[in-house]
Amino acid sequence: MTDQPSRRRAGGREARRAAREEATTSSAPYLIRTIPPYEIMSEDGLEIIENNADIILEEVGIDFRDYPSSLELLKNAGATIDGERVRFPKGMCREIVTKSAPPSYIQHARNPSKNVQIGGDATVLVPAYGSPFVFDLDNGRRYANIEDFRNFVKLAYMSPHLHHSGGTVVEPVDIPVSKRHLDMVYSHLKYSDKPFMGSVTAAERAQDSVALAEMVFGDGFLNENTVMTSLINASSPMCWDASMLGAAEVYARSNQATVISPFIVAGAMSPVTVAGVAAQTLAEALAGMTFIQLVNPGAPTVFGSFAMSMSMQTGAPTFGTPEPALILYTMAALARRLGVPFRSGGNLCSSKIPDAQAASESISTFIPAILGGVNFMLHSAGWLEGGLAMGYEKFIIDADQCGLAASFVKGVDLSENGQALDAIKETGPGQHFLGSEHTLKNFETAFAVSEVANNDSYEQWSEEGSLDAAQRANTIWKKMLNDYEPPPLDEAIDEAMLDFIAKRKDELPDAFA
Amino acid sequence: MTDQPSRRRAGGREARRAAREEATTSSAPYLIRTIPPYEIMSEDGLEIIENNADIILEEVGIDFRDYPSSLELLKNAGATIDGERVRFPKGMCREIVTKSAPPSYIQHARNPSKNVQIGGDATVLVPAYGSPFVFDLDNGRRYANIEDFRNFVKLAYMSPHLHHSGGTVVEPVDIPVSKRHLDMVYSHLKYSDKPFMGSVTAAERAQDSVALAEMVFGDGFLNENTVMTSLINASSPMCWDASMLGAAEVYARSNQATVISPFIVAGAMSPVTVAGVAAQTLAEALAGMTFIQLVNPGAPTVFGSFAMSMSMQTGAPTFGTPEPALILYTMAALARRLGVPFRSGGNLCSSKIPDAQAASESISTFIPAILGGVNFMLHSAGWLEGGLAMGYEKFIIDADQCGLAASFVKGVDLSENGQALDAIKETGPGQHFLGSEHTLKNFETAFAVSEVANNDSYEQWSEEGSLDAAQRANTIWKKMLNDYEPPPLDEAIDEAMLDFIAKRKDELPDAFA
Repeated sequence: MTDQPSRRRAGGREARRAAREEATTSSAPYLIRTIPPYEIMSEDGLEIIENNADIILEEVGIDFRDYPSSLELLKNAGATIDGERVRFPKGMCREIVTKSAPPSYIQHARNPSKNVQIGGDATVLVPAYGSPFVFDLDNGRRYANIEDFRNFVKLAYMSPHLHHSGGTVVEPVDIPVSKRHLDMVYSHLKYSDKPFMGSVTAAERAQDSVALAEMVFGDGFLNENTVMTSLINASSPMCWDASMLGAAEVYARSNQATVISPFIVAGAMSPVTVAGVAAQTLAEALAGMTFIQLVNPGAPTVFGSFAMSMSMQTGAPTFGTPEPALILYTMAALARRLGVPFRSGGNLCSSKIPDAQAASESISTFIPAILGGVNFMLHSAGWLEGGLAMGYEKFIIDADQCGLAASFVKGVDLSENGQALDAIKETGPGQHFLGSEHTLKNFETAFAVSEVANNDSYEQWSEEGSLDAAQRANTIWKKMLNDYEPPPLDEAIDEAMLDFIAKRKDELPDAFA
Repeated sequence: MTDQPSRRRAGGREARRAAREEATTSSAPYLIRTIPPYEIMSEDGLEIIENNADIILEEVGIDFRDYPSSLELLKNAGATIDGERVRFPKGMCREIVTKSAPPSYIQHARNPSKNVQIGGDATVLVPAYGSPFVFDLDNGRRYANIEDFRNFVKLAYMSPHLHHSGGTVVEPVDIPVSKRHLDMVYSHLKYSDKPFMGSVTAAERAQDSVALAEMVFGDGFLNENTVMTSLINASSPMCWDASMLGAAEVYARSNQATVISPFIVAGAMSPVTVAGVAAQTLAEALAGMTFIQLVNPGAPTVFGSFAMSMSMQTGAPTFGTPEPALILYTMAALARRLGVPFRSGGNLCSSKIPDAQAASESISTFIPAILGGVNFMLHSAGWLEGGLAMGYEKFIIDADQCGLAASFVKGVDLSENGQALDAIKETGPGQHFLGSEHTLKNFETAFAVSEVANNDSYEQWSEEGSLDAAQRANTIWKKMLNDYEPPPLDEAIDEAMLDFIAKRKDELPDAFA
C-alpha cells in the first residue's frame, strides 16, 4: 500500500475500456482537422469559376479518347457527342456527381487499425508517386529499382506520420513496364499493412491489382468495401485517355476509389492565370467524376488537382511559388462546395537535392494543402526534382513535417487546462513557469517535436560534426531500414499472390515502354 | 504619325498624373494584402482569451520596474498600485488603447517614395534584429562587427523585397555598447533611404536616435510625423523594465512609434499552452500600450507578439513548430479586434546554417505571418540559430521568399483577363496554350519568380557545379555588396550627424556591457 491515490484502479474493466478508447482516439491513423479551412475567395468568386467550368463543359467540351463505350455512356446520360468531343448540358455533371458520389469513404487497410477516412475533416498523408529516379546522399541520383520501391514501402510503413503506403512510390525500371505493376502491388501488400494505391496504366493492370487485393482481403470483401484509391490523371487540357479511363472503369466497377486528377503545367496545358486554371481543372474533374458515377453510381471518387507554375526562362515547371498555392486554396473550396473528397498538395519542389530550396518550396505547398483542407495528400514525402526523383533524405525530412502538422490541425485547446489561467495566477510577474504544477503536468505533450531539427547550442552541434538536416536524415532512414520488420502476413495468402504473379508474368510480354 | 493609337497622349498633364499614380500604386513600397486573414479561432474563443487577459490585468497585475513615473501615470488613469505591481480595472486598458491608439500610421523614410504604412491591409517586411553573431559560407560563424552591420543595411537597401532597413540588424560588438547606437542609427540614415528603427536600450540612446533623425528629416518634422518604429520588449512574464519604458517614453513623446512586444519562451516565461500564452501576451501588450497612450495619446504603437516553443530535452527555444504558428494566428486576430497594427513572425529558425531545417522552420513561421495578416514583420530576413546569428546567405534566401509573398497576397485575379475563358475556348481540348494570344500577353507577369531557386534540368544543374541554394545565395549577396551604391545624402547633413556622433562619443563612457 502507498499513499498515492490509485486513480486508474477504480472501475476495473470499464476503466480499461475507457483507457483503450482514449488510446485509439489519440492514435487515429490519419489527421482529423479541427481547424477551419482557409478561404481565399468569396462565394461570389467561386461562383464565377463554377460558371466558367459549366461554360467549358457545355461549349468547349471534353475529349474522351479511344474509348467508345465512355461516349455511349455519356450520351445516354444526356451529353452531346461530336466525334470524341463530349459536351455537357449546363449542370449535368454537377447534378450527377452531387447525387451519387460519396462525400467521404473508408479505405480499408489489411490491418484494420490503419483504415483511413478519405473526405470530410480527415487528411490522409501519402508518399510521393511516380519518380523514375532516386536520390540519396551516398549515391547521388540514379534510376530506381524494385529494391528502392520496397525500401520506400518499408519507410512509409514505419513512419508514424504517413497514413498510406502510396502507389508507384518509385518506378522500378529494372522490371518490364508490362509486369512491374504486379511487383509493386505485391510489395505494398507484403511489406506494409497500410492502405495503398492500385495500378492505373492499363485496364488489365487495374484488374490484376483488384485480383491481388482480393487474395489478401478475402473473396467478396471488395464488393462491399474500398481497399484501393488509385490515381487517374487527365491528359489536360480537356482530354481523358483510354488507358486511364479503362483503369478507372475497372476500379469503379469493383467499388474501388479513383482520384480524378487534372494535371496542369499552367501556361502549357491551361491558361497562365489562376482563375483560368481553376475553371479548367473543375471542368475536367467534373467530366471525369461524371464518367465514374455513370459506370457505378456511388463508387468513391476524389476530386484531384495538381497544378504547377512555369519558369519563364526555360519552360520548366516550378513549385512552391504563389500561384499553385492560390490554385490549391481555390480548388479545395470548389471541392467543398461540390461535396466530394479533395486531393492536392504535398511536399513538392523542383530542387534536385534536399537543401533550403527543397524545404522552402515543399513547405510552401504543404501548408496550403493543410490549411486548404486537402483530404488525400499525395506526394507528402520524398518528392525531389519536380517529381523526377524520390529522395531518401527528403522522405525523412518531409515525414517529419507531416508529424508536426498532426499537432497543428488540432488547433488551439480552449479547455480549462489549455487556458492555464490558474498557472498564470499562481506564478505571477517576474517568476518562471518551468517548475509550476501546470507546466510539469503538460510539458511532455505541450510541444510537437521535430525528429530532424537540431536545437542544440552551436558549440554542441559543432562538436557533433556540424551536420545539416539532410545528413541527419541520412542516418535516420538507414536506421529505419535496418530496424524494419515486416507486418505479419498469412503464408498461404503470400504463396497465392506469388503464384498468381508468376502465372501472370508468364502470360505477359516483356515490354519496357 | 503612326497607326497606333496614342492613348497616353490625350489629356496631357492629367494623363501624366494618372500614369504617375499608376506607377506609384504598382510599386507600393510595402505589401497590400487583398486576401482575407486566416481565422483559426471562433469569436467565442477569442472572447475567452480577452476575458482571461482582463483577469490577468485585474487580479494578477503587471510590474512596472524601477520607473516610478510610470506608476504615477497609471495610478492617475485609474490603476491600483501595490509597490511596482499595477492592477487595472476590467476594461481600462482596452478602453484607453481603443480610444487613442491609431489603427495604422505612416512611417516616413528619408526617401518619401519608400514611406510605409504600418497597419490595416499593409505588411511591411523588416530584416532580422539583434544577433551578436554573423554566419556566411566562407567564414562560418563569428562575432558581428560594424562592417557586418553596414553590409546588412546595404543588402536591405538593395533588396526590392524588403521594405525597411530594420534596427539592430546585428550587434556591432567591436563598438562599446554605450556608443554603438550612434553608429547603428547613422548607418541606417547614411547607407539606406528606407525607414528604420531607433535604439531602445536606454532613454538617452532613444534621445540620440531622435536627435540624429531630426538632422536628416529637418527641425519639427518629427513632431508631426513618425520616422522611427522601435522595438520595446517586455520582460515576460508580466514585467516592463525601466530601460525599455524609458526609451518607449522618449519615442512616444516625440510622436515616434513603438512596438510593444511580449517576448515569450512558452513553458519558461508563460504556461506551455497556446491559449495561456495568448492571454498573457495580450495582457502584457495591453499594459504596455496603455502606458504609451497615457504618455502621449495618439502616439503610434504596434501590438507585438514573439512566442517560441521549447525543446523538452534541452530547454532550448524551438521555431517553426505548430504551437508558435497557432499563437501567431490567435494574436493576429486579437490585434484586429483591438484595432491596432500587429507585429509578429518572420523567417525564424533554430538551425545554425541555411539548410533544409532552416528553410522548413522559416517558412513555417513566414506563411502564418503572411496569412495571419502581420503588419510589421520583424525578422523577415537573415535569422539563424534562434536569433543568435545573422546569416548572409539566409538573408538572401529569406528575402527571395518575401518577393514571392508579394505576389501571393494579391490573391486571385478575377478580371476577365484573369478568368481567361476566351483563351480556353480558343485553344480547346488537346491543344497547348504556349502560343495562345492570352499566354503571350500574360506570360511575363503570370508567375512570380524565385531568384534563388534552380529549376534547370538535373544535367544542366550538374554541369554548372551542382550548387545548393545556400551556395547560389552566397554568389548573390557578394554581387549585391559589390554593386552597392549609396543613396544620395546632403553633405551638410552627413557632416552634422558625424559632428554630433563625435561629440556624444566624447561624452559617453566606454562600456561593453
